[in-house]
Amino acid sequence: MTQTNRRWVLARRPRGEIDPDVLQLVESPVPEVPEGAFLARNLYLSLDPTHRIWMSDVEQYLPPVEIGSTMRGGTIGRVVASRADAFPTGTFVQGMGGWQDYWLARPGEAGRLPAERDGPLTLYMGLLGSIGATAYFGMLEIGAPKAGETVVVSAAAGAVGSIAGQLAKIHGARVIGIAGGAEKCGWITRDLGFDAAIDYKSEYVYERLKALAPHGVNVYFDNTGGAILDAALQNLAIGARIPLCGLIAGYNDPKGMAGPRYYHNILTKRATVKGFIILDYLKRFPEALAKLGAWYREGRIKYRVDVYPGLENAPQTLKKLFDGSHKGKLIVKIAEEA
Amino acid sequence: MTQTNRRWVLARRPRGEIDPDVLQLVESPVPEVPEGAFLARNLYLSLDPTHRIWMSDVEQYLPPVEIGSTMRGGTIGRVVASRADAFPTGTFVQGMGGWQDYWLARPGEAGRLPAERDGPLTLYMGLLGSIGATAYFGMLEIGAPKAGETVVVSAAAGAVGSIAGQLAKIHGARVIGIAGGAEKCGWITRDLGFDAAIDYKSEYVYERLKALAPHGVNVYFDNTGGAILDAALQNLAIGARIPLCGLIAGYNDPKGMAGPRYYHNILTKRATVKGFIILDYLKRFPEALAKLGAWYREGRIKYRVDVYPGLENAPQTLKKLFDGSHKGKLIVKIAEEA
Repeated sequence: MTQTNRRWVLARRPRGEIDPDVLQLVESPVPEVPEGAFLARNLYLSLDPTHRIWMSDVEQYLPPVEIGSTMRGGTIGRVVASRADAFPTGTFVQGMGGWQDYWLARPGEAGRLPAERDGPLTLYMGLLGSIGATAYFGMLEIGAPKAGETVVVSAAAGAVGSIAGQLAKIHGARVIGIAGGAEKCGWITRDLGFDAAIDYKSEYVYERLKALAPHGVNVYFDNTGGAILDAALQNLAIGARIPLCGLIAGYNDPKGMAGPRYYHNILTKRATVKGFIILDYLKRFPEALAKLGAWYREGRIKYRVDVYPGLENAPQTLKKLFDGSHKGKLIVKIAEEA
Repeated sequence: MTQTNRRWVLARRPRGEIDPDVLQLVESPVPEVPEGAFLARNLYLSLDPTHRIWMSDVEQYLPPVEIGSTMRGGTIGRVVASRADAFPTGTFVQGMGGWQDYWLARPGEAGRLPAERDGPLTLYMGLLGSIGATAYFGMLEIGAPKAGETVVVSAAAGAVGSIAGQLAKIHGARVIGIAGGAEKCGWITRDLGFDAAIDYKSEYVYERLKALAPHGVNVYFDNTGGAILDAALQNLAIGARIPLCGLIAGYNDPKGMAGPRYYHNILTKRATVKGFIILDYLKRFPEALAKLGAWYREGRIKYRVDVYPGLENAPQTLKKLFDGSHKGKLIVKIAEEA
């Protein structure tokens, strides 16, 4: 065990891009473990678009990370010291362990990974965690695609979008994914079975959507907002559903996020936009994860992760979320599992 | 019977405001009545925000009015010549009779007013017609306010808004109306029983909403869009519902309608925006009108109309919808009832 706990603290709030002085790597002593708590060695850190929101002080669904505090983030780790009976040494745990080497936690703050696992630890940081649950409730409850309907997913090669699109396919919809670049577009159509892909970096999304969905879009699963949302709003079918999962196109905009230009089509097309946050579905996770696990074992859902080593590189790695240069769920490997 | 049918035709599409050359008053012979049809003398013409949309060629829920055609509009009239058994001379009829003196129609295009009426003919052009049904389905099905919740209505002294707010009151909600000017604000609080009013012409809507709804807005019934929508989005409670009924703030904007600046709060607050158009509820009108009629007879819903004489003045009268100088449902009186 190292004697120090490296942790990234929020030094100032970003304006626009996350400049190098926004986060600062500091070293603290590894904390003592009080009665009833445990200490976990963080092994993997999940990097998610919402981290950019937590760094800011805009109104949000959790308190903003305070200046000088360890940056919040989801982790998988292994207990290395324990004074909590339910979490003995060696237990694999999951929770908001933060951007740091060690996490001092109490049982109520952490979940235990199942002893019999369906795949590598990182599977539980994505498909069989809150990422998968987000796709599940957003697509199946809010989007609720019917067989034969046309479903469009933005950020379709991303962690949530790739699962959301496959769930729509399982339910008989025709699925069009919007992603950046030939590699991602090839992956979702060839490997994931999407019916079509639109490369927003080289194609006009509005024109392509119009051609690919001549009868309109019944479900638009939105991860991005921005110009892609507007292209979708211009191609809605009557009665369309828009699960609003994320708005990453605007997160780094120093002027703040702009609303869609074609908002009025929500009225014209009698559409429904419903924002959702996965924390509201926590109690129903077992239902979602059981179904996702079954489809994964049957080979009906594929999933990929993009793991980058080094806690010290986490801010650089986070940039990949916003420039789209990652391939699948973005994860930092903090330490070896063994 | 006059020998000519005066009718307003759409001469060109408006850019921004409805300039005097957009509509042109022409005279045609009163048409012959073919077998199976009837001719009604139009008595009242309903003026509604959606007329501005029908004049334009933006994507919309009915075909745009064609250049050179009689302007579309809802009317109440009386049959003066008939070759349709179900609509004998003297029958009071309702339908899309248009901006004209006479309407040649077939039975499937028209409805008959009930023989036993709860009030004047104009009641059926508002509270007991599509206006009332719009408020009913929008507020009670989409907004679905619970007792004790906070409901905000924009254009709250208008035809739809005034009913929508009273329906929320009947269901136990706390209701805040947003209207322009002291007279309208006084009317909705003093006569209609709204709990509070915000005068958007003299008050900062965002600040006032924040003060009046410190726990957030559970239902925002939107007739306007624009800055008032943004003020509401900034004050949403978690899980808010936004029945999207109209966007009048943008209809006259030559640059087109802008989307809300605070669209992202739909995500943060897990809100639902649902656009609706009353034509989708046609089959359920009897249910809505029966309930509205009962509440009206019990004195639990009040309603006012603002009737201006003269088909020839209709374009001038329409302007009142957009400058807000009318008081209640805006109607043109085309001819005397007797």
